[in-house]
Amino acid sequence: MGCVQSFRELCDRQKNTNVRKSLPAVCIVWQTAMIILFGVFIRYNEEADTHWVEHRHTKNISSDIENDFYYRYPSFQDVHVMIFVGFGFLMTFLKRYSFGAVGFNFLIAAFGLQWALLMQGWFHSLDYTDGKIKIGVENMINADFCVAGCLIAYGAVLGKVSAVQLLVMTLFGVTLFAVEEYIILNVIHARDAGGSMVIHTFGAYYGLSISWMLYRPNLDQSDRLHGSVYHSDVFAMIGTLFLWMFWPSFNSAITDHGDGQHRAAINTYLALAATVLTTVAISSLFQKHGKLDMVHIQNATLAGGVAVGTAAEFMLMPYGALIVGFCCGIISTLGYVYLSPFMEKYLKIQDTCGIHNLHAMPGVIGGIVGAITAASATESVYGVEGLINTFDFKEDFKDMVPSRQGGHQAAGLCVALCFAVGGGIAVGCILRLPIWGDPADDNCFDDETYWEVPDEEEDVPPILHYNNHMLYLTTVYWSCPLRLFSPQTNHTAPNCTILFLVLLSLYPYG
Amino acid sequence: MGCVQSFRELCDRQKNTNVRKSLPAVCIVWQTAMIILFGVFIRYNEEADTHWVEHRHTKNISSDIENDFYYRYPSFQDVHVMIFVGFGFLMTFLKRYSFGAVGFNFLIAAFGLQWALLMQGWFHSLDYTDGKIKIGVENMINADFCVAGCLIAYGAVLGKVSAVQLLVMTLFGVTLFAVEEYIILNVIHARDAGGSMVIHTFGAYYGLSISWMLYRPNLDQSDRLHGSVYHSDVFAMIGTLFLWMFWPSFNSAITDHGDGQHRAAINTYLALAATVLTTVAISSLFQKHGKLDMVHIQNATLAGGVAVGTAAEFMLMPYGALIVGFCCGIISTLGYVYLSPFMEKYLKIQDTCGIHNLHAMPGVIGGIVGAITAASATESVYGVEGLINTFDFKEDFKDMVPSRQGGHQAAGLCVALCFAVGGGIAVGCILRLPIWGDPADDNCFDDETYWEVPDEEEDVPPILHYNNHMLYLTTVYWSCPLRLFSPQTNHTAPNCTILFLVLLSLYPYG
Amino acid sequence: MGCVQSFRELCDRQKNTNVRKSLPAVCIVWQTAMIILFGVFIRYNEEADTHWVEHRHTKNISSDIENDFYYRYPSFQDVHVMIFVGFGFLMTFLKRYSFGAVGFNFLIAAFGLQWALLMQGWFHSLDYTDGKIKIGVENMINADFCVAGCLIAYGAVLGKVSAVQLLVMTLFGVTLFAVEEYIILNVIHARDAGGSMVIHTFGAYYGLSISWMLYRPNLDQSDRLHGSVYHSDVFAMIGTLFLWMFWPSFNSAITDHGDGQHRAAINTYLALAATVLTTVAISSLFQKHGKLDMVHIQNATLAGGVAVGTAAEFMLMPYGALIVGFCCGIISTLGYVYLSPFMEKYLKIQDTCGIHNLHAMPGVIGGIVGAITAASATESVYGVEGLINTFDFKEDFKDMVPSRQGGHQAAGLCVALCFAVGGGIAVGCILRLPIWGDPADDNCFDDETYWEVPDEEEDVPPILHYNNHMLYLTTVYWSCPLRLFSPQTNHTAPNCTILFLVLLSLYPYG
Repeated sequence: MGCVQSFRELCDRQKNTNVRKSLPAVCIVWQTAMIILFGVFIRYNEEADTHWVEHRHTKNISSDIENDFYYRYPSFQDVHVMIFVGFGFLMTFLKRYSFGAVGFNFLIAAFGLQWALLMQGWFHSLDYTDGKIKIGVENMINADFCVAGCLIAYGAVLGKVSAVQLLVMTLFGVTLFAVEEYIILNVIHARDAGGSMVIHTFGAYYGLSISWMLYRPNLDQSDRLHGSVYHSDVFAMIGTLFLWMFWPSFNSAITDHGDGQHRAAINTYLALAATVLTTVAISSLFQKHGKLDMVHIQNATLAGGVAVGTAAEFMLMPYGALIVGFCCGIISTLGYVYLSPFMEKYLKIQDTCGIHNLHAMPGVIGGIVGAITAASATESVYGVEGLINTFDFKEDFKDMVPSRQGGHQAAGLCVALCFAVGGGIAVGCILRLPIWGDPADDNCFDDETYWEVPDEEEDVPPILHYNNHMLYLTTVYWSCPLRLFSPQTNHTAPNCTILFLVLLSLYPYG
Repeated sequence: MGCVQSFRELCDRQKNTNVRKSLPAVCIVWQTAMIILFGVFIRYNEEADTHWVEHRHTKNISSDIENDFYYRYPSFQDVHVMIFVGFGFLMTFLKRYSFGAVGFNFLIAAFGLQWALLMQGWFHSLDYTDGKIKIGVENMINADFCVAGCLIAYGAVLGKVSAVQLLVMTLFGVTLFAVEEYIILNVIHARDAGGSMVIHTFGAYYGLSISWMLYRPNLDQSDRLHGSVYHSDVFAMIGTLFLWMFWPSFNSAITDHGDGQHRAAINTYLALAATVLTTVAISSLFQKHGKLDMVHIQNATLAGGVAVGTAAEFMLMPYGALIVGFCCGIISTLGYVYLSPFMEKYLKIQDTCGIHNLHAMPGVIGGIVGAITAASATESVYGVEGLINTFDFKEDFKDMVPSRQGGHQAAGLCVALCFAVGGGIAVGCILRLPIWGDPADDNCFDDETYWEVPDEEEDVPPILHYNNHMLYLTTVYWSCPLRLFSPQTNHTAPNCTILFLVLLSLYPYG
Repeated sequence: MGCVQSFRELCDRQKNTNVRKSLPAVCIVWQTAMIILFGVFIRYNEEADTHWVEHRHTKNISSDIENDFYYRYPSFQDVHVMIFVGFGFLMTFLKRYSFGAVGFNFLIAAFGLQWALLMQGWFHSLDYTDGKIKIGVENMINADFCVAGCLIAYGAVLGKVSAVQLLVMTLFGVTLFAVEEYIILNVIHARDAGGSMVIHTFGAYYGLSISWMLYRPNLDQSDRLHGSVYHSDVFAMIGTLFLWMFWPSFNSAITDHGDGQHRAAINTYLALAATVLTTVAISSLFQKHGKLDMVHIQNATLAGGVAVGTAAEFMLMPYGALIVGFCCGIISTLGYVYLSPFMEKYLKIQDTCGIHNLHAMPGVIGGIVGAITAASATESVYGVEGLINTFDFKEDFKDMVPSRQGGHQAAGLCVALCFAVGGGIAVGCILRLPIWGDPADDNCFDDETYWEVPDEEEDVPPILHYNNHMLYLTTVYWSCPLRLFSPQTNHTAPNCTILFLVLLSLYPYG
């Protein structure tokens, strides 16, 4: 017990937020390691290599347009925008944490994608003939997907951790993600095109577990900064909209060429549209006077995209996508209204962005919808070839049937949950060590801690300047004669002193 | 007459902006209806269905890349960005209506696109063999187009209506749009790739007619909020630029594969570039000291894209596109300078965003340019096959000639105008009913009415806090001794009271 | 000497920033000239012309998807976003120059791209059979590229020049660019897909030379506006992120179909990721308390994309791209810390956006990396066909070998530098003429000079209104009785006057 006690004391000692040594050290060491590992392991695949011309002749590919680049690059760019602008700006809603939101999001995404290329490469793209990982546009998309999981986790701890902690969290997060993804997609053979399970469920519970480990009982000391201002809410809408608009690309980015990508895009488009309507309905219903709450509009409107992730490439049918979106808008908004306060108060989970409502619950729903849709697939709906292509019933799994596939999907969901919670608790332990430069309870949600924040003096509206300037001049004008010409009256003293102090307090406007 | 009188009184009674019942009810009922109708009617088309593999074999399609998804999805994403970020942020220019601009735009677009898929589907994509609408990426683009018409109309009534009114307006707008589009494109056989007539002329006059019906004589009571602030103008530029940049995709999204899309993109790109130059010229010329006006830069720069919509797929020639852009920049900016004030004062049309200048006039010009370009088409310029492909002189219209096509184009413009004005007046009547929760004249352009707006206290610059805090302390310091130690001097009373009141007034800074 | 003296005096006379005549005149005249020149010279190429159907049959092209539009249009759109949103918003970081940043960027880009289509067309796309320039999507990308050079140059003089000066600067910039590009790419036969030399080195040194010519010794008079505020830094991050995300499209936009575009995108993606890590490291290391500086995050994170421009299409290898990014992040950030202050103080080069650190140095590094990578190319790595395709060893250059190609690359870098510095000095001379309406030293970085800036009064937080209103009422309340009922006490006079003046100064809140 003494050991636990001293560990606790060690963790809770005076905070030092100076990361001038640790942050550069981690970045430089890590980037150097990446260069070495990339030098040893990573090469272009046959579609990005100058030998493509020869490869075309060998494989009898008729045209350059058959290069996977032209199938997937537009989707990749949309996903890229979601990762950097979408997630980054979605988190700018706090009044004084926009730099941290968009800047640290940028840092950990750039950091994570390199490690993801390696980790995922070892599992999926290793060429056993020469021991190299061969990368192309699909690897870039997958690396962005992997990073998405870690950025979701960032949402839970936003404003409460240092950049170094985020890098550590991302390092382990990407590692866990790659293993979990391999088990779910390759060992269990679950399908998860949009990553409801692999990305959202994993990322959200990983972040929530870490947030639980890093529970701050005195976080209310930062309450003055724990909210939005008018224009920070507008900035956050940039993030919301780019996530919302490009989610069809996210869910269709790595699905099958042809009908797979086409169908995934349509399903996601429809699910998201339905979510907006029910989010608005519930937001209005549960607020005084029926006013809408920006938190709901910014977040819950995206839940449909999460929940349709797994099933997007299946024959979910347009109305199926609408139903999924309908339910998720309701559940996610209710989560913001009731569940988030409950979790903070009773479960000691402080979830800054409400990722439990946006990613965790819709992710689990997505996994379940995927399992049901897969289990109920029939040859009459999919066609013989269609069924094989959609569920990849080939090679080792050529004897698979839809009903068993449904079971595998459910198993995949469980694996994602286990990795997320287990990994999150372990990483949370590491992050409690007092060496990472995290902020004190009364410095959370404040950019001042880690950023050079510009002086705001100039932001004073001109009319106030004018006003204070007038007061200043008035005071100057009267303070002198009073002192000089009225020495005999005893009541000038307080007048003079008042004027003098007013003078002092208005000095900056002089 | 008594009847009219009592209708007027009914409409003008005390405003109740509480939409806590009506908004959720409309959203939930409508979304449920959509699920049912989609269940009955909507299926994937052959390119988004798992039977695509078999379809490929049947139709002898060599490769997955021939799927329409790869022709149109990048354009679709650009259009999608225009609808949600472009239109949404363009309207954030008002100082306290950014939530409403971007949030209600989001709501009605998500609402409208589902209804558009159905309405347009019945007219254009109905499979008579099984009574189902078969949708693919082109339907998604068309649904976004249809929604664009309603968002244009929103620009005229921005800040003056409730969310419920907007939903009603969108419901009828989409319905009218689909009918009008069917008549113009299929019955009259006019061509309108970028929707100068179908989208812009219709949407703008529909919105202006509604705004005329909803005329508010005392709108000047909201004058304090009827303008921009510095950063709201910058937010609006996000909208402007995304509209401007992606307009080539808008005009080329549903044109013919190959040269059609290519040519439409080039023409739009050039027309827009020319518009920027003339907008700047006129804006500077008509302002005191040659200063530029942000309203013009945000709006009139887009007029060229509107006006080149119909003719973008024709052989307008690069210089033709420049001429169109040149004229529209001038006309649109002059519209902001002279016409908008005139319309408000004499025609009783209050047009918040100036859509008459940005969409109505350029849309009509676009229709006329389209008619002229079509009428002057020749086989020597287009080639025999080119003429047939561009104007779709096939099947029922295989005997059509360019000069008659020009007449049909002009007829199309008239149909768009009639539907817009007629429909707008009818819908405006409905929206005057006092059941929709619209704001009073002194609450227009204010997010407080329909949104939970964050408390801005923290936004006070630190220097002011310090300053007021000093005054407070000074006052506290002097008020006590004066009262205690100078009871004999009669003039301390006013001093004390002044100090006491200053104390009170500065209390929040203590 | 007298002549130089009087030229100097002429240039330094009283500034008149009224551009009401010159700006409209330049815009209208220029746009008219463009229409005429486009009418004489510019036509659609065979892929954008209605004769495409016949062209397809002639060339035996199997499908519409082979149209260059489908290879390049998504990249074009990304480049377009970089030009207008990326460059535009990157420059909004100044507290009161966001209108100028995004608005003038918009103006000169729209102006420059038309002239670029002509200039580049004469050099690259002139059809000698009919004397016409035939344009398609690749010309649009190249025009955007050309404009990028001028926008980079704008970064150096941001806030210190008038719109008319910018137009003149762009006119000459585009002209010089087209000539320089022709010499480097066609005469010298250097390869420069992402434009490290052609775009970035040229643009940056062109801008720096102009800034040197326009040196303002008393620029510190505008120091109050020469910095950022919190939300302007967030706006600038929009620019940064869109540049960062779409840079892979920039560098791959005009590379070879197939593997060329694929490889360029991968290399750029990796280089940029590495740059982020080292930028953060150096920024933290060189700041007090290890805090990050937004200036570095906004700019230096992009240096990797600049530096990998030339070599992106070569077999740089993924680790090579990481090394380039690693070095550039360090060099660029150090440039902001040490070099920019040095250049301003000793070299008299005032570089508002620090383009020397973001474009000039990384551009030169990019040229050198390109030369080394080209010189060390071997047939074993590239393959026989791959080497020929990548370096275009065809026709006049079919006897070229990689080592000589390396020399040609280096020669290309020198040409870019010479054109930039020479051209910049010449154009700088022209811009010193006192006819362009540039601002005085104490009016720099201020939108008020060239824009109608909205009145900010409403921006006063409500609490301050309340507060001042209370003071006002207090004062009114006390000033009257004091005057009326205490005529006999001589000390009421100062009280009254103070109150009267407070009254006056608070009048706007009454």
